[in-house]
Amino acid sequence: MSPRQPAPLDPHRVEASGAFVEVFSLEPFQSGALDGLCFTVKDNIHIGGHRTSFGSPAWRDSHPAPLRNAICVDQLLAAGATCVGKVVADEFTYSLDGENPFYGTPLNAKAPDRIPGGSSSGSASSVACGLADFSLGTDSGGSIRVPASLCGVWGMRPSLHRISEAGVLPFMPSVSTVGVVAADFEILRRVMTLLLRTGDETTVPMERIVLLDDAFAVADGPVREAAERAIGELATRAGIALERASFSDIVGREMTLSACNEEALRNLQTMEFENTVGDWIEGHRPELGFAFSMAYGNVKSFDRGQAMASLALCESLFREINRFFRAGTIVCFPTTPTVAPLRDSLDRPQSVWDFYGRTMTTTSFSGTGRLPEIAAPLLSVDGCPVGLSFAAAHYEDAFLLKALGDLLSV
Amino acid sequence: MSPRQPAPLDPHRVEASGAFVEVFSLEPFQSGALDGLCFTVKDNIHIGGHRTSFGSPAWRDSHPAPLRNAICVDQLLAAGATCVGKVVADEFTYSLDGENPFYGTPLNAKAPDRIPGGSSSGSASSVACGLADFSLGTDSGGSIRVPASLCGVWGMRPSLHRISEAGVLPFMPSVSTVGVVAADFEILRRVMTLLLRTGDETTVPMERIVLLDDAFAVADGPVREAAERAIGELATRAGIALERASFSDIVGREMTLSACNEEALRNLQTMEFENTVGDWIEGHRPELGFAFSMAYGNVKSFDRGQAMASLALCESLFREINRFFRAGTIVCFPTTPTVAPLRDSLDRPQSVWDFYGRTMTTTSFSGTGRLPEIAAPLLSVDGCPVGLSFAAAHYEDAFLLKALGDLLSV
Repeated sequence: MSPRQPAPLDPHRVEASGAFVEVFSLEPFQSGALDGLCFTVKDNIHIGGHRTSFGSPAWRDSHPAPLRNAICVDQLLAAGATCVGKVVADEFTYSLDGENPFYGTPLNAKAPDRIPGGSSSGSASSVACGLADFSLGTDSGGSIRVPASLCGVWGMRPSLHRISEAGVLPFMPSVSTVGVVAADFEILRRVMTLLLRTGDETTVPMERIVLLDDAFAVADGPVREAAERAIGELATRAGIALERASFSDIVGREMTLSACNEEALRNLQTMEFENTVGDWIEGHRPELGFAFSMAYGNVKSFDRGQAMASLALCESLFREINRFFRAGTIVCFPTTPTVAPLRDSLDRPQSVWDFYGRTMTTTSFSGTGRLPEIAAPLLSVDGCPVGLSFAAAHYEDAFLLKALGDLLSV
Repeated sequence: MSPRQPAPLDPHRVEASGAFVEVFSLEPFQSGALDGLCFTVKDNIHIGGHRTSFGSPAWRDSHPAPLRNAICVDQLLAAGATCVGKVVADEFTYSLDGENPFYGTPLNAKAPDRIPGGSSSGSASSVACGLADFSLGTDSGGSIRVPASLCGVWGMRPSLHRISEAGVLPFMPSVSTVGVVAADFEILRRVMTLLLRTGDETTVPMERIVLLDDAFAVADGPVREAAERAIGELATRAGIALERASFSDIVGREMTLSACNEEALRNLQTMEFENTVGDWIEGHRPELGFAFSMAYGNVKSFDRGQAMASLALCESLFREINRFFRAGTIVCFPTTPTVAPLRDSLDRPQSVWDFYGRTMTTTSFSGTGRLPEIAAPLLSVDGCPVGLSFAAAHYEDAFLLKALGDLLSV
């Protein structure tokens, strides 16, 4: 197999993964930094000549196929990578669990009785199943980080808007970000460096790692302990002192990370979702899945007038979070507070609330700070994978990639 | 007239302005910081229950009316302002001249035989005609700054993505920004502070004003001289020393601002426009205006493979430009290199090329740097208005507003 022509995917393994919406092969435009790598694309990112579903057959059927690839897809093809297919997204990408009533639940290869997480479910699944070296996804409230954590693969949500969103379906414009799931750190680093165009950036050395107390506190005990042990060992080997800080310490005001999610970020997300997907749903009355219908009920009863205070709070918190990050700072915490829930277990309000409430509390840190965050598959609890997350200041994507490479290779 | 209930617009003045697509009155949700102010909205920003045309009847007729207002509209209504109508945009907002073949050419009130500039033509016109205190617009390649300059009103393009784009038609996702045209600086400051939510930000004092040589060099002689005289007087009164720098000095490499536009920003803009508007046009074959058809011909022959180098260059230049801005720095230059061309004079390739080439060279500085820029109506050449621009570092919007307020009030 030459580096430019990866082998076709095995149809049986594709079928077993449940990750694919379509299998095809888009050859690279030319040779480049990603020669020999294969990737999949989440089904809210355009591929010319193929309809985009947004995780919804109704959306798919009412929108023509785009003519052009999203810019992020073209960046990869122009760098030598081969696109091997489109992969499942949660319905309108508005979920963190990966159970799509229309397109199915992609396999969580390392914990087959458990959900893969979403909404970039097919991205994480296709990579964890060994069917792609990496996958393009999107992340607004954790949609790359959560499935990466639950499937035990690498994931990076870069700083907000660092990658072009041309050709990506609009979702939550102040929050949504294109990012990557990858099979190993080296692939993640190569692909992100290409997409972010960070080649000529200089970076400072890592000087401190700060453990985010609030995220540790909402995690299950075994996840918390595994995370503390892993980061403790890495820091000791690297000779870097660990610090701890609460969200209040970081932003310099009395506020928990949970309040940051509930009072600030979530309202911005809901409000923006109303403008993009909500307007389309009201105008088209498509068939909706049960879980989405339930979640969307909350959107419909949302008070936009009240959300203005949340908009202002998001902006203040963004500045405060980034003021905390002096040069060389990394903040570390469990990517998700739990391992993947069992399939079909998110069927009661209590279990949904527990999973979403604690998970979105955790993911709201980088969401509000517009931070680059890498979910590293370094933890294992009861045989199930969980990610350990590393976040850096807004726009310090190159530093984060370099610092994590150094930390892992010591 | 109470501050909450502005008088209805005079139909004769509305008609004479040619600026409006629809006249109506959206009452504020409540009293607030913008009590008593009236605003118009560019016709690529959603107002619930009213179709959005994007400057194209074909677009308007094939898209249902949005149900909800764009978030930026709701921010203003929630702060006490009244929306008095939708105003003309250039066809697909893809122009800087303000001559829309379907919706007409809004009046340039201070130079009635001249074009208003675009694509936020109706925004600048409605404010310059005294029919609104301010207007919401968008700016990707100068679409707020250019009409503000040519119509003699205030305009601000804030830092990229500082204002929510939910409910604004996608255009060039890595470049497009919501901003404001206003009748005076005090209104601009109040409205921008509200939209940007900068109330609690601390700012440093202005320490230096740097004249951008490349932008002065492409300006007509009288514009250049008027700009130098005006900034000279302001700086002297404020006791601030002026410096000069070429674009090469700023980015630390051999590159003109013209090359920045042609080799970097323009290709990113074209590529993103292909994904948003281009795809829709190819799929729907709508009736197109002559000038747009000509411009779009260049888009269709665009080589996306070659544009990858431009993407990388944009990212490097963004970092280099912002590295130049140490705390307290303002960069100053003429907003446009010319006064408004005469109406119907942009009918030969040479005149189009001259107007667009020099204008987009000038506007590419803040576009590439993702900088906040304020166009101040401080210059007059042969009785026609021209703007003087002030730009600050990315995200230093609050500093720019404060520094300019100080400079003008000394």
